[in-house]
Amino acid sequence: MSANRTSHIRLTSHPGSGSASRYSINWDAPTARERGPVIATPNSGVNRNAVGAHGGAYSIYRALAISSGAMAAETRPELHNTHPVAQVGPHAQWHEAGKIVSLDPWGHRVSEDFAAELAEGLDVRPTIAITKARIHLPEIGDAIAKGRLEVDGRIIHEGGEIAVTKAAIDPVWHLPGIASRFEVDETQLRRTLFEQTGGMYPELVTRPDLSVFLPPIGGITLYMFGDPARIGDGRYSLTCRVHDECNGSDVFGSDICTCRPYLTHGIEEAARQAQAGGAGLIVYNRKEGRALGEVTKFLVYNARKRQPGGDQAATYFERTECVAGVQDARFQQLMPDVIHWLGIRRIDRFVSMSNMKYDALLKGGVEIGERVPIPDYLVPDDASVEMEAKKAAGYFTSGKPPTKADLKRVVGRDLKEF
Amino acid sequence: MSANRTSHIRLTSHPGSGSASRYSINWDAPTARERGPVIATPNSGVNRNAVGAHGGAYSIYRALAISSGAMAAETRPELHNTHPVAQVGPHAQWHEAGKIVSLDPWGHRVSEDFAAELAEGLDVRPTIAITKARIHLPEIGDAIAKGRLEVDGRIIHEGGEIAVTKAAIDPVWHLPGIASRFEVDETQLRRTLFEQTGGMYPELVTRPDLSVFLPPIGGITLYMFGDPARIGDGRYSLTCRVHDECNGSDVFGSDICTCRPYLTHGIEEAARQAQAGGAGLIVYNRKEGRALGEVTKFLVYNARKRQPGGDQAATYFERTECVAGVQDARFQQLMPDVIHWLGIRRIDRFVSMSNMKYDALLKGGVEIGERVPIPDYLVPDDASVEMEAKKAAGYFTSGKPPTKADLKRVVGRDLKEF
Repeated sequence: MSANRTSHIRLTSHPGSGSASRYSINWDAPTARERGPVIATPNSGVNRNAVGAHGGAYSIYRALAISSGAMAAETRPELHNTHPVAQVGPHAQWHEAGKIVSLDPWGHRVSEDFAAELAEGLDVRPTIAITKARIHLPEIGDAIAKGRLEVDGRIIHEGGEIAVTKAAIDPVWHLPGIASRFEVDETQLRRTLFEQTGGMYPELVTRPDLSVFLPPIGGITLYMFGDPARIGDGRYSLTCRVHDECNGSDVFGSDICTCRPYLTHGIEEAARQAQAGGAGLIVYNRKEGRALGEVTKFLVYNARKRQPGGDQAATYFERTECVAGVQDARFQQLMPDVIHWLGIRRIDRFVSMSNMKYDALLKGGVEIGERVPIPDYLVPDDASVEMEAKKAAGYFTSGKPPTKADLKRVVGRDLKEF
Repeated sequence: MSANRTSHIRLTSHPGSGSASRYSINWDAPTARERGPVIATPNSGVNRNAVGAHGGAYSIYRALAISSGAMAAETRPELHNTHPVAQVGPHAQWHEAGKIVSLDPWGHRVSEDFAAELAEGLDVRPTIAITKARIHLPEIGDAIAKGRLEVDGRIIHEGGEIAVTKAAIDPVWHLPGIASRFEVDETQLRRTLFEQTGGMYPELVTRPDLSVFLPPIGGITLYMFGDPARIGDGRYSLTCRVHDECNGSDVFGSDICTCRPYLTHGIEEAARQAQAGGAGLIVYNRKEGRALGEVTKFLVYNARKRQPGGDQAATYFERTECVAGVQDARFQQLMPDVIHWLGIRRIDRFVSMSNMKYDALLKGGVEIGERVPIPDYLVPDDASVEMEAKKAAGYFTSGKPPTKADLKRVVGRDLKEF
């Protein structure tokens, strides 16, 4: 490419001046065709009707691929054979105003719903993919060995493998809906998103006519146990855990928290419900370190371990706030969207102690039967600091929440003892 | 805030016009103070000297926190007690030109190196954090039970817990260095990054004077086994696995690939080396689905399983390319940076079969002793499709690579058999 093309870079766009897409988005419409396709590829020119890029952060790797010549900029995905292995929806919640604002409920169906446009050459891309898997976790093997779970050849196979249907979901934000969920002014939200990210996507500000944004944040993975059709069907019991990513525990088994033990407990409960004729669901949200990231998380660990008196339950939340400026940035307000996407109105067994998740679901109109805490035998010693601090802060517990004096007595491992 | 502030939004900045930072960055300088601090917070005004935002994608959550009133925009981290639990560097590689271009080698030392500036109120933030952990993996318990590993009370504790030092590293790109690593023109790279992400960060284009970019992509986590000081010290043997994230296997144990088994094998080998007086290292890169993301990955799974003839090793790479436009977007070119950061010149045992990783390390001047393949007993049945396809494509194997005819015979589980 010649150097003088550089002068033609458009730094942002503005409404009008030939920039209006032929494909308008009518967010809460009852059908995909009335809603309209979300078009966010750089090659779609005037048809583009969303801010951001498909694949979120992975668009940066795509840019590297193109820049280095490994991939042609005009490449378009061949969607043949990629369609979902199981049907999800449509559900009434997909067009109940304000129920779903952070994902595209029609995102897995684009090759079906927009077949005509795709055939004409419009680059519509899925933002959701649904496939099958067999998963094998040592903790499930242990549950079988101890007689807590049984191999049935249908949900749990010989060798302890569990059959699941899984879905990957990229975030698609309807900005007016996001603003309303956080009870803030949309213009102000757009401006804060732009400014606090150091100037990411000026179109957030210059294109108030574009209501959809694909933010470069992590998405969601769903693991469904049993017949996926039973998940949104109130006639069947549903066990569900909503889990926020914690790489240090989920993958590496760090004993400072209860993340992986609670996750595998959720999988065990979900599989058991599916075996009993109901359905199970794990929602896995990519929100590392309370959506503050792992660097912040490790800084907080050091501050916790080094404070006078050691790592105490009494100052657990305080230390995070000192380092990060906020105790938690996960904002469960958006979490119920995926529950609505699945058509769920009631969770019979909710495998979580989080009052934030519980409150968000209730506020979203989802009924909760029983709350299932993590069994004591699954809590690692060093994680008691987190566990007791959370109980005192209002997390669900079957016993009495700890007192201030109790909290001071719960102290974790010292840095010298690792 | 009043609505008329909206008219003062600066959509991008330009060199000169009062925008030059007092803190210039001299990337390959021999000391932190000569290099200069990386300043990328929205509140740093004219002192800002980098494009992007701290925390990458998590800056979006921070924006939500500020927008919803949960956090004040001017909040600054209290870094007291957050400093590293172990010293890393400085190493000669930190100022060998072009050796490190995708992370800030001084990123963990800001409260030490820039104490004066921090005291004056400059908002310099760490991009690396180093802490300790005890990790507990069922697979390690199994290795102990089977006699492959021993509890020594130092590296491996009673109960099978392993003591580690771990580091979280956020990406910090030196754009001229990135361009040179990919052998592309910097101006063109900046433009492609901007355009192919749908217009993220116009300063990539308007601020050629800013050479540093904090991209909102996932970072790196390091798990160090044994005395971290031995890792960059050639007198001690080093075992290392470089692992690219695969949530489906690393967390959930999906049997379609070898990711978690190979990771836990790497941890076992790393712990063993540390017990023998050397050091072990796991590099965990957040590059889900070959840096194409999980939605693309699941679409590819469906296309693989549904193609005529079933999921064959013969067409393993082809299916990814059809859906994603490229077989792999991980670009191992940047991977050696973290190896250089640790001062490593030689890896005695490299627990990986990837020819891309091996070639990138060699090209970066890192010597490799032995290559350690995954033991056959750890390869799940359904993952043989991936394994054989990789061997045929040039991955390291102790046996003969499979022929084309062999590849056609290796067929994975059908969608009906899950």
